[in-house]
Amino acid sequence: MPEKYTIGLDYGTNSVRALIVNVAHGREVGTAVWNYEHGTAGVILSRDPNLARQHPADYIKGAEITIKKALVDAKTNTRGFKPEQVIGIGVDTTGSTPLPVDRAGQPLAFDKKFAKNPAAMAWLWKDHTGVAEAAEITGLAKKIRPQYLAKCGGVYSSEWFFSKILHCLRTAPEVFNSAHSWVELADYVPAALTGTEPPDQFVAGVCAAGHKAMWNANWNGYPDAAFLSQLDPKLGRLRSRLTARVHSIDRAVGGLTGAWARKTGLKAGIPVAVGAFDAHLGAVGSGVAPGALVKIIGTSTCDIAISPNHQSLADIPGLCGIVDGSVLPGYFGLEAGQSAVGDIFNWWVHYVQPGGKKPLSHADLDKAAAKLQAGESGLLALDWNNGNRTILADQRLTGLLVGQTLYTSPVEIYRALVEATAFGALTIINRFEEYGVKIDQVINCGGIAEKSPLTMQIYADVTGRPMKISRSAQTCALGAAIAGAWVGGAYRDFASAQKAMTGLKPRIYRPDPKAHLVYRELYALYKILHDAFGTRDWSGNLHSVMKQLIDVRNRVRR
Amino acid sequence: MPEKYTIGLDYGTNSVRALIVNVAHGREVGTAVWNYEHGTAGVILSRDPNLARQHPADYIKGAEITIKKALVDAKTNTRGFKPEQVIGIGVDTTGSTPLPVDRAGQPLAFDKKFAKNPAAMAWLWKDHTGVAEAAEITGLAKKIRPQYLAKCGGVYSSEWFFSKILHCLRTAPEVFNSAHSWVELADYVPAALTGTEPPDQFVAGVCAAGHKAMWNANWNGYPDAAFLSQLDPKLGRLRSRLTARVHSIDRAVGGLTGAWARKTGLKAGIPVAVGAFDAHLGAVGSGVAPGALVKIIGTSTCDIAISPNHQSLADIPGLCGIVDGSVLPGYFGLEAGQSAVGDIFNWWVHYVQPGGKKPLSHADLDKAAAKLQAGESGLLALDWNNGNRTILADQRLTGLLVGQTLYTSPVEIYRALVEATAFGALTIINRFEEYGVKIDQVINCGGIAEKSPLTMQIYADVTGRPMKISRSAQTCALGAAIAGAWVGGAYRDFASAQKAMTGLKPRIYRPDPKAHLVYRELYALYKILHDAFGTRDWSGNLHSVMKQLIDVRNRVRR
Repeated sequence: MPEKYTIGLDYGTNSVRALIVNVAHGREVGTAVWNYEHGTAGVILSRDPNLARQHPADYIKGAEITIKKALVDAKTNTRGFKPEQVIGIGVDTTGSTPLPVDRAGQPLAFDKKFAKNPAAMAWLWKDHTGVAEAAEITGLAKKIRPQYLAKCGGVYSSEWFFSKILHCLRTAPEVFNSAHSWVELADYVPAALTGTEPPDQFVAGVCAAGHKAMWNANWNGYPDAAFLSQLDPKLGRLRSRLTARVHSIDRAVGGLTGAWARKTGLKAGIPVAVGAFDAHLGAVGSGVAPGALVKIIGTSTCDIAISPNHQSLADIPGLCGIVDGSVLPGYFGLEAGQSAVGDIFNWWVHYVQPGGKKPLSHADLDKAAAKLQAGESGLLALDWNNGNRTILADQRLTGLLVGQTLYTSPVEIYRALVEATAFGALTIINRFEEYGVKIDQVINCGGIAEKSPLTMQIYADVTGRPMKISRSAQTCALGAAIAGAWVGGAYRDFASAQKAMTGLKPRIYRPDPKAHLVYRELYALYKILHDAFGTRDWSGNLHSVMKQLIDVRNRVRR
Repeated sequence: MPEKYTIGLDYGTNSVRALIVNVAHGREVGTAVWNYEHGTAGVILSRDPNLARQHPADYIKGAEITIKKALVDAKTNTRGFKPEQVIGIGVDTTGSTPLPVDRAGQPLAFDKKFAKNPAAMAWLWKDHTGVAEAAEITGLAKKIRPQYLAKCGGVYSSEWFFSKILHCLRTAPEVFNSAHSWVELADYVPAALTGTEPPDQFVAGVCAAGHKAMWNANWNGYPDAAFLSQLDPKLGRLRSRLTARVHSIDRAVGGLTGAWARKTGLKAGIPVAVGAFDAHLGAVGSGVAPGALVKIIGTSTCDIAISPNHQSLADIPGLCGIVDGSVLPGYFGLEAGQSAVGDIFNWWVHYVQPGGKKPLSHADLDKAAAKLQAGESGLLALDWNNGNRTILADQRLTGLLVGQTLYTSPVEIYRALVEATAFGALTIINRFEEYGVKIDQVINCGGIAEKSPLTMQIYADVTGRPMKISRSAQTCALGAAIAGAWVGGAYRDFASAQKAMTGLKPRIYRPDPKAHLVYRELYALYKILHDAFGTRDWSGNLHSVMKQLIDVRNRVRR
């Protein structure tokens, strides 16, 4: 019997990747990456530093180019490989990255009239133009629909679906009025590959809808029209034009169109799975399972766990999102994260540039910091240089370093920053467990997990738990390929597909008991700082210090 | 009538300086510096990082060389200058720098038997070998003589007279037992120049005795014998061999001996004033007066004010010392200080070395930081990298930086460190005023006051007060020379001598009202951090965080 393969299409911020894997064991046989050609490294910018858009043409062109190249790559690597052996496709994307579409489901940006209008493009996840609208949505929900916020960490973000759409309505009404509907990138790509139309027939992933658009089966889908109308009557009317077909990744959106089959060399009709966000499919590709926490560690982290949906689960304060089926069918998908990890180390290396004439690189610092013992520096830091996503859900928090003397070295500070992110990671694990989501194992993936043994060892020592590393370096694309394998019929159940196709690296970082004891003491001190500066539980007014500094800064800079 | 001159002899940590000034207006006509020849840059070190000693031979040789060279320099600079025109000498030294002496007042180190014994040398101010003894003295005084501590900031320091002597008694009994007495360097030099002996006839400066040896006229001089005996009976017996002649700098110790006159070319018999510490005579040389605060700003600061001794003055909590006559006769000398100022900036420049391949120098940072506005960085720091001398009197406090983001630059951090020292300076000014010592003007001197306009402007902006700079760059030696002028009979009263011989630089740094308003806000936040981390007033347990970090560090390093 010939081998079977699937394709994972992974849409990142600057590029798209196609990954072809063998469905029997998940090994990668071919891959290709294509950098978006619009804007700066794929991102359309403007004078407004909050604006970040993408041209949807890059998504279509990118799929064609990377699929074709990955097939060539697979043929080169694997004797006898044939494109017809590809039995399914899965898609993961950034998000929330909504785009306005016309009645046929075509991006407005494809219309000449809007070809250069940034509001008609895809509103990239990191577009923050909707800050005011996010505050408005949060304020209204707090007042009249608190249940909407309980599942998304208590605050509706400027990065999310309705903040962006409402901002478009307010600032680019010509675009809003011309849009028949809005779709997430994660839903647009599968629809395009399968020729689905009109947009209210698109199949939306519950991952995007649930985590970013307050969709929940318990309240009949998206926020009710009355709520949306109170923000703006036009937004209320949009609701009925959003697709009601919302599913987990274990469903197929449809079959690959003949046109796409001809363009790429794939078989027409092979199923395309419902799309989801990169982190969620990254968790799938890392082997997320009940009791496992998957940490995707890069510039920031996304921490994903799941919990069986037949058991009741409390709203967990501070979590970014709790959505039934957003990671795996049959489970609540629980999303947490740290606003900065690698970005904090990058700040130290690239902004402060310590070390004199031979500035210290990440590698230098990793090596030197590994020689220090836990607690030896007398330093303690908070990992809030970019705010705190979980468990405080407060972007207006900032970094803190304490304990420096006249002899504190840049290596010691670097290690303290790594330790700070480990304490932040432990705080997230503890929060899961406090609310009944037991974490039996921690699986890491992403650049830092692969490249920094120092970080992984410190995470093990701080948490007192072994740190495992996902075998694949492309867990997001692999997760998408697993969804493709399931909808392609290669397995009887989703869990078997995932189990067969994922794995761990042989090296596991195990906690050093002596270091762990020291870190238990330091974590108690971290928690004192965390609560004093990050919560109002504290009786003093330290909780306002960071915010007042930001207020002063903004006033002075204005 | 021919001009009259005096000499100020200024004994620093690494070198001694002689300065010849014209008594009419204080202008400097000749100077010479000689680097001590023993040890490393004049300091005898050992494996114990706490040990720092000096060889007394350097003091004697240094006086001879620098006086002779300064006289040559004066002859070169000033037509008709003759050594006979020198009418008096004043002496300032580091301290507490006690040394053991024999029955004739000669340093034990001059005895062959002890020529290489570090315990027989002068115990330099920064020798910290007596940490345990300092704690013992503090503990006993707290229990049975709290009044002793009330005048010296509540804690008896390891840097001070009795800590060092008790440590010698415990660890080098052969030296202690051979010593007839112990004298401060500030008292030894005038005794040597005037041939005073035996040591119990030395005239001790009230500056050293009062600030470092708990001497106070109110309790009949040094701590009572019962107290000292409880520390060690031998220490109790030493008390009667310490000189009872303790005076302000307005007295002459005696006249220059014939031998010294022949060695130097000065007139025999010219009066030598009672010695005092560098900072105190620095304040005199800067023009300290009622209502003036003199800040001597270098690696750390010494902040000196005076208050009329006919008015009652409360014990001011946290001040390092309050001693009647220690600066000027007729006034309480009030000493405060910051444990690190320039040292914190040096830490950033030399230990962290930020800025990449072209590391940022002090000058680079000063220039770039001057372009930033108050509050613009969003940063706030505590100036405690070397502990806090005033007002918390707690060496186990450490640095803190808060507000950093992913874009915080090394220049912004540098400015935040400068601002932190300014907030520390303001806290000292406020403490003086809270206890009725009104500060009408602030006069700065020392390296940073001269070299860093950024620092001076920020001090003005933070405190809302003009920052004046002392005219002389050698205020300590100038202060000694003023004492020499007074004992030499050039003036009818001390204040007139000081007024005539001191002055200010023309440039005064005036507060920018806009910046001051911002800094008022930031200072309120600084005080929140200060009180939370530095005092027990705070209801949380933040006050223990820095200390616990130090405890962990010490335990791990051991």
